Amino acid sequence: MPQNVFFFGNGKAEGTREWRDLLGGKGANLHEMTNLGIPVPPGFTITTTVCDEFLKHGTSPGNLRDEVNAALARLEATVGRKFGDPKDPLLVSVRSGARVSMPGMMETILNLGLNDETVEGLAAQSKNPRFAWDSYRRFLQMYGDVVMGVASEQFEQLLSTKRMLSGAKTDAEIPADILKTLAGEYKLLVKHSLGRELPMDPHEQLWGAIEAVFKSWTLKKAVDYRKVNVIPDTPGTAVNVMAMVFGNLGDDSGTGVAFTRDPSTGERRFYGEFLVNAQGEDVVAGIRTPLPITAMADAFPEAYAALMKVQDTLEKHFRDMQDLEFTVERKTLYMLQTRTGKRTVAAAVRIAHEMVAEGLISKTDAVKRVRPSQLDQLLHPVLDPGTRATVLATGLPASPGAASGQAVFDADEAERRAARGDQVILVRPETTPEDFHGIVAARAVLTERGGMTSHAAVVCRGMGKVAVVGCKDIRVDVTKRCFTVGDTVVSERDWITLDGATGRVYAGHLPTVPSEVMRVLGGTLRAPDAPVFQSYDELLCWADGARRLKVRANADTPKDARTARQFGAEGIGLCRTEHMFFEGDRITPMREMIVAHDEAGRRRALEKLLPMQRSDFEGIFEAMSPYPVTIRLLDPPLHEFLPHGGEEVKLLARTLGITRPELNHLVDSLRETNPMLGHRGCRLGITYPEITEMQARAIFRAAVSVKRRGKEVHPEIMIPLVATVKEFDHQRAIVDRVAEEVMGSMGESLPYLVGTMIELPRAALTADLIAARAEFFSFGTNDLTQTTLGLSRDDAGRFLPLYVEKGIFPEDPFRVLDVEGVGQLIEMAVKKGRATRAGLKCGICGEHGGEPASVGFFHRAGLDYVSCSPFRVPIARLAAGQAALE
Amino acid sequence: MPQNVFFFGNGKAEGTREWRDLLGGKGANLHEMTNLGIPVPPGFTITTTVCDEFLKHGTSPGNLRDEVNAALARLEATVGRKFGDPKDPLLVSVRSGARVSMPGMMETILNLGLNDETVEGLAAQSKNPRFAWDSYRRFLQMYGDVVMGVASEQFEQLLSTKRMLSGAKTDAEIPADILKTLAGEYKLLVKHSLGRELPMDPHEQLWGAIEAVFKSWTLKKAVDYRKVNVIPDTPGTAVNVMAMVFGNLGDDSGTGVAFTRDPSTGERRFYGEFLVNAQGEDVVAGIRTPLPITAMADAFPEAYAALMKVQDTLEKHFRDMQDLEFTVERKTLYMLQTRTGKRTVAAAVRIAHEMVAEGLISKTDAVKRVRPSQLDQLLHPVLDPGTRATVLATGLPASPGAASGQAVFDADEAERRAARGDQVILVRPETTPEDFHGIVAARAVLTERGGMTSHAAVVCRGMGKVAVVGCKDIRVDVTKRCFTVGDTVVSERDWITLDGATGRVYAGHLPTVPSEVMRVLGGTLRAPDAPVFQSYDELLCWADGARRLKVRANADTPKDARTARQFGAEGIGLCRTEHMFFEGDRITPMREMIVAHDEAGRRRALEKLLPMQRSDFEGIFEAMSPYPVTIRLLDPPLHEFLPHGGEEVKLLARTLGITRPELNHLVDSLRETNPMLGHRGCRLGITYPEITEMQARAIFRAAVSVKRRGKEVHPEIMIPLVATVKEFDHQRAIVDRVAEEVMGSMGESLPYLVGTMIELPRAALTADLIAARAEFFSFGTNDLTQTTLGLSRDDAGRFLPLYVEKGIFPEDPFRVLDVEGVGQLIEMAVKKGRATRAGLKCGICGEHGGEPASVGFFHRAGLDYVSCSPFRVPIARLAAGQAALE
Repeated sequence: MPQNVFFFGNGKAEGTREWRDLLGGKGANLHEMTNLGIPVPPGFTITTTVCDEFLKHGTSPGNLRDEVNAALARLEATVGRKFGDPKDPLLVSVRSGARVSMPGMMETILNLGLNDETVEGLAAQSKNPRFAWDSYRRFLQMYGDVVMGVASEQFEQLLSTKRMLSGAKTDAEIPADILKTLAGEYKLLVKHSLGRELPMDPHEQLWGAIEAVFKSWTLKKAVDYRKVNVIPDTPGTAVNVMAMVFGNLGDDSGTGVAFTRDPSTGERRFYGEFLVNAQGEDVVAGIRTPLPITAMADAFPEAYAALMKVQDTLEKHFRDMQDLEFTVERKTLYMLQTRTGKRTVAAAVRIAHEMVAEGLISKTDAVKRVRPSQLDQLLHPVLDPGTRATVLATGLPASPGAASGQAVFDADEAERRAARGDQVILVRPETTPEDFHGIVAARAVLTERGGMTSHAAVVCRGMGKVAVVGCKDIRVDVTKRCFTVGDTVVSERDWITLDGATGRVYAGHLPTVPSEVMRVLGGTLRAPDAPVFQSYDELLCWADGARRLKVRANADTPKDARTARQFGAEGIGLCRTEHMFFEGDRITPMREMIVAHDEAGRRRALEKLLPMQRSDFEGIFEAMSPYPVTIRLLDPPLHEFLPHGGEEVKLLARTLGITRPELNHLVDSLRETNPMLGHRGCRLGITYPEITEMQARAIFRAAVSVKRRGKEVHPEIMIPLVATVKEFDHQRAIVDRVAEEVMGSMGESLPYLVGTMIELPRAALTADLIAARAEFFSFGTNDLTQTTLGLSRDDAGRFLPLYVEKGIFPEDPFRVLDVEGVGQLIEMAVKKGRATRAGLKCGICGEHGGEPASVGFFHRAGLDYVSCSPFRVPIARLAAGQAALE
Repeated sequence: MPQNVFFFGNGKAEGTREWRDLLGGKGANLHEMTNLGIPVPPGFTITTTVCDEFLKHGTSPGNLRDEVNAALARLEATVGRKFGDPKDPLLVSVRSGARVSMPGMMETILNLGLNDETVEGLAAQSKNPRFAWDSYRRFLQMYGDVVMGVASEQFEQLLSTKRMLSGAKTDAEIPADILKTLAGEYKLLVKHSLGRELPMDPHEQLWGAIEAVFKSWTLKKAVDYRKVNVIPDTPGTAVNVMAMVFGNLGDDSGTGVAFTRDPSTGERRFYGEFLVNAQGEDVVAGIRTPLPITAMADAFPEAYAALMKVQDTLEKHFRDMQDLEFTVERKTLYMLQTRTGKRTVAAAVRIAHEMVAEGLISKTDAVKRVRPSQLDQLLHPVLDPGTRATVLATGLPASPGAASGQAVFDADEAERRAARGDQVILVRPETTPEDFHGIVAARAVLTERGGMTSHAAVVCRGMGKVAVVGCKDIRVDVTKRCFTVGDTVVSERDWITLDGATGRVYAGHLPTVPSEVMRVLGGTLRAPDAPVFQSYDELLCWADGARRLKVRANADTPKDARTARQFGAEGIGLCRTEHMFFEGDRITPMREMIVAHDEAGRRRALEKLLPMQRSDFEGIFEAMSPYPVTIRLLDPPLHEFLPHGGEEVKLLARTLGITRPELNHLVDSLRETNPMLGHRGCRLGITYPEITEMQARAIFRAAVSVKRRGKEVHPEIMIPLVATVKEFDHQRAIVDRVAEEVMGSMGESLPYLVGTMIELPRAALTADLIAARAEFFSFGTNDLTQTTLGLSRDDAGRFLPLYVEKGIFPEDPFRVLDVEGVGQLIEMAVKKGRATRAGLKCGICGEHGGEPASVGFFHRAGLDYVSCSPFRVPIARLAAGQAALE
């Protein structure tokens, strides 16, 4: 039979830190500390396996009782006290301890072993009857609540009655005799509630407590916590039974928590809090103000010296910042817990970086230590930490950072007001590409509808602009130019503040400050004065050294391209040309093209767009030189460029010189039932080859011009929404012909590639055929996810949250790549494509390019690069480094 | 070097009928007839390989000239005349002849060998100068046009001038001397147009003609014909050079065309037309009215007897109905061509059936002889053959048959008027599921928008109802209740007639008649009086004997189910439950359910729907017993059940007792950007499990009731739009639980299956996982095509025709399955599914289930059944038979 109980004490433990799965995190570390010679109260750990078995079958293994009794006997011998001894009783704590720390989620029983007899022994031994009776009533309350299920409010009510009657302001002032009466009342409460007595036999108490800890694994809060933190349901929790030590025996006792480094900034200084004459729960409860840990040097010099030595030993031993719990009992230090400390991302970066310098960990360790998804917290402006404000509403945290501005309710107004220098926040029921200029002008965007990958969310993340979307609490009324939350009305020009990292919306103007990293990148702070920046920068360099995946950015403007390079992008993986058509007055020739009756009319309009596109491309090529720039040809359906509103149609009809009914009919005829699956992508370029021709001409003219200025250019032209190789062929022929024309007439040649988006299942399935003609693949995982799953990202909001909640999807597949389905197509396409064209360049340019788990998959799938929005480039660099190191 | 020229003549030919690829169809059959001892003018065939080479390299093989000269010498010897002999010249025809007949698409030169000298010899020999000069001027005109490229209108102008000046009414009245002058003018025309002479050297003439025939392979009309008829571009055309025979030498000569059986009815009687003293082109030109072939018995008894023998020989030899061309020259019969005759579908069925009885072909041959796609022409009403009418507009032929009725412009009006006994045709810009009751009530449907697989098209085909969709010629104005075609206005109650087989729309009431097959199935005609029905019926029985695929029908009502059985369906492969919700007043509780605020409200509304669904299912189970019935749970997005118009919203709000703004807000909030990829299918059943529960309850209660009546029932419950096995699991658990409940409470058990639609790429990719839980797969190829290709069938109309025209898609993928893409997913899913669950039942229930080429693929992919609309069941039966025989 396997061993179920493992003993620690007297400088020797049966387990080690490696046994987390079996002993839980807390247990394994108690064993480890014991073996390191660190003072830990002795005790024993019941394994997680027992918990699994107990929860499965409702009973514990047959030999458990014998093992526990043996361990208890050994504990008695070690401590020199007997369990249940009326003179000098051994008291124990019974604590949970899962493999992964789940703070506060499960149950604990302290002071176990007390009963009507042993409490008298404890009073005599401690020479402190009040302490003994207080310990006893606490035990009865905990046990009655946790093990027996009597509502804790009832115990609290009896306690507060006693406080009133004794004239005490706090529990600590209730005298011993009253506490004794209270203990009797607690026992009566249990008996009356349940019809049975709270057990007085310490062994019976112990078994009750052990089983209660096991059962607490399935408490709702514990189950929820595991779901949110993606912790598996097995193994369950271990149970640690430990001899009690008391920090509340008098002024020579105390208790505290500490971190081996500052968990907020990462600074290397011992940091913590301490209370004299108190138990652990008093520190957490916040009734008394704790002292800084340094004050302990004066109060208990020996214990403090011991603690300093212990913390140093533990950090060096565990090679990571530790979160410690300790108690001083009559001047002697006892360690109750050590675990890896939680920290802010700034602290994580700084600690990892500095521990390398200290020789504590390797660069590889450091790269692995930081969660890539947190990195962008270092980039976005933050709410001034000093402010306090009431949350008005909460939506989806679509694009992190904090921003304040005056609410505006349409894109034109946003542009007008921003041009006057106002800070505005664009508030819309939802956004469309028509709102693009408004988004550009606004500091942030707030929408009532739409999910994490809705238009507003994607565009804002791409621009590093704050966004809160799908904020169902608000009702936007565009006509009345206001939004309401319940009875509160926020009108145009009212100030609001968004926190895009939490999805919170605040009324008023809460000040924000740029992050340290951004201040250095922006040149307003010197790097030597910015320890977080230094750590961030060096850590990413180490990741760069490790990774195989290149990291590019999705960038549509020279400004975006420059930002992307600041963040370390090695090229542009997706330059969307359509956004260029929305800027300034370009929308007019674009619309002229759409309403033209024939090719000649379209060509006239395209002729006007050509120089604009060309100058855009020149700026982008220059900003990104010598890296490659992948330009996607026009993708969205044409109706996205036309106005929908009555007034705008009237205006446009006048501008274009056609009648309103004519224009309305055209808008109507372009309307699509499923625009996602409609007339877009290369289908446009095939229907209107002159569009492809104009775009190719603009690209090659720009490339040649930039090359003439002595800069290296690598245009990569990408044909969107290809389903069959024949579509690709059709478009490639136009691009090649224009390339030859332009280079011929300008007398300059340069290398270029023509490739395709793989964003339809059919393209992946026939990748072998497409690769015969395409020089690169770029997986458009947004659309590939939509088509593979048959899931519109604009509409999925109605059921996707439920799907994730029910575990039907492990994650939102638009955030984390669906490896089982979409991933299978990607692997297939890479394999088939490279079977036809060895070494085919493969990348990905969907939203998943900046999501760490997905980046890991792309590494394993053998892609050459990922491309993501500029602000996610650091995340991708780190994730790619981690993937390579796995 | 390969042989390029093959000789035939004097009862012996170098080639046979098997050499179609090399000698073309016409050439191979000329060789074959020669070998059979049938009188054929001697000649030789230049192979298709030469054409391919000529078109590729612009030159003919080096040895061709020697081979042609040798063949020509042999021809001279056989005929006993010399090419270019001024006294008695050999004249030849030069004709194209591809592997597959392309009637009229390529060029022919007759009377070649005539020049200023030989024409005199021909005049002397024939003792008919007018014949000789007419032949000469015809040759000059043909050669000048076809070989030299002078516009034929110019020759025509000279000819008509002569007609005027000579006072002739027809060309035949122009005297010989004028024709001689005309010949001179023709030569001058060529010289002035091109600056060079029309060649007088017969050898030069011959080479020019041969190359002109080769080049005619690439004429636009020939290329288009090949595209439409899916004929490959290689091999090209052969060239047949044959000694001329003349049907226009006098009253002892003539020419004709004939069929060995009636090509219209299939009746076994020799059928054809005949002209005395005429050449072949006169028969075609229709200037003189030809005589029935039987008249030839009197005019040329010997030649007629010979022809009767020849036609009998040829039909027996080729074992199929032949289309013959012949000439009688001075009482002697010459056969110029034989080929398989084109025929109507009725004739095809009857000929195939009768030839089996005659012992001419096997049953297998008969099954293979009929094009399955034509079969439904036998089922739909037909325009009375006697009527003549002007076509008003032409749309897409979405659902065949002919129907007349009064135009109505909304579904309610259609229902009201039909209830009064009026015949109505529903005319809409496009149809939605809301129009369902109107479609049911109407005789036919005409829409302005939508493709071959739009809602109207699919629903109408499913019901065997006539439909013309995507009729861009018309502009429907629902408000004014009319549609316009140019200046013509068709108002409500005006009669129109649709021909769903051609897409034609006629004004007025053109009478239609039910087809023979339908009259027998409907009991108004006895089978013994219906030869076409008998042939149809027996042919399908033979196909049934051969096929491995089962054929089921998509049917939503007991009536549909009964129709499907008449057509031979072996079960229902798709019963869509949503159509039931649109019928009568059921839409109201359905809408109550949608607007309900909570589950309790939804359950109350579902409770009202339960008995209705149950009674529907009872009817369907009874009609289909003992065959299986596959029922798909609710699939479409809920907004499809809500009204969109203002008036209807008002009415509904009143009915449901909620405010209009409330209802409007709800309609608005359910609106989806891409409903195809939205909140539908099992996503509904997961969000609202009570819907699945109600449907399962209705199904099982109905099944048990029908079983109690002593009928066998096999319900197969199908979960739609599954992307992951977890969705399936969730829904299956509900179905199984309800099944247990119902069977338990009703004290009766019966077998049932729970399976899934495979209609998303992800389902196919993870079929191994899904098959662990699903007991059958049914491929929903409509949606699978939409998602795999990223192509909305509602929107594809804007570019799909262009795609097919440009050859980017070989066919409309919603009509003929995209084997390369979608087919790959189907094969993958079948393989993966059966790897998990051996013998997993796999079927298909998309539109492709009734399309012959797709049925062939489904057979090869190893599916167990196809399911299609009832009227397509015969097509599927035949196609499945043919697939098995391949």
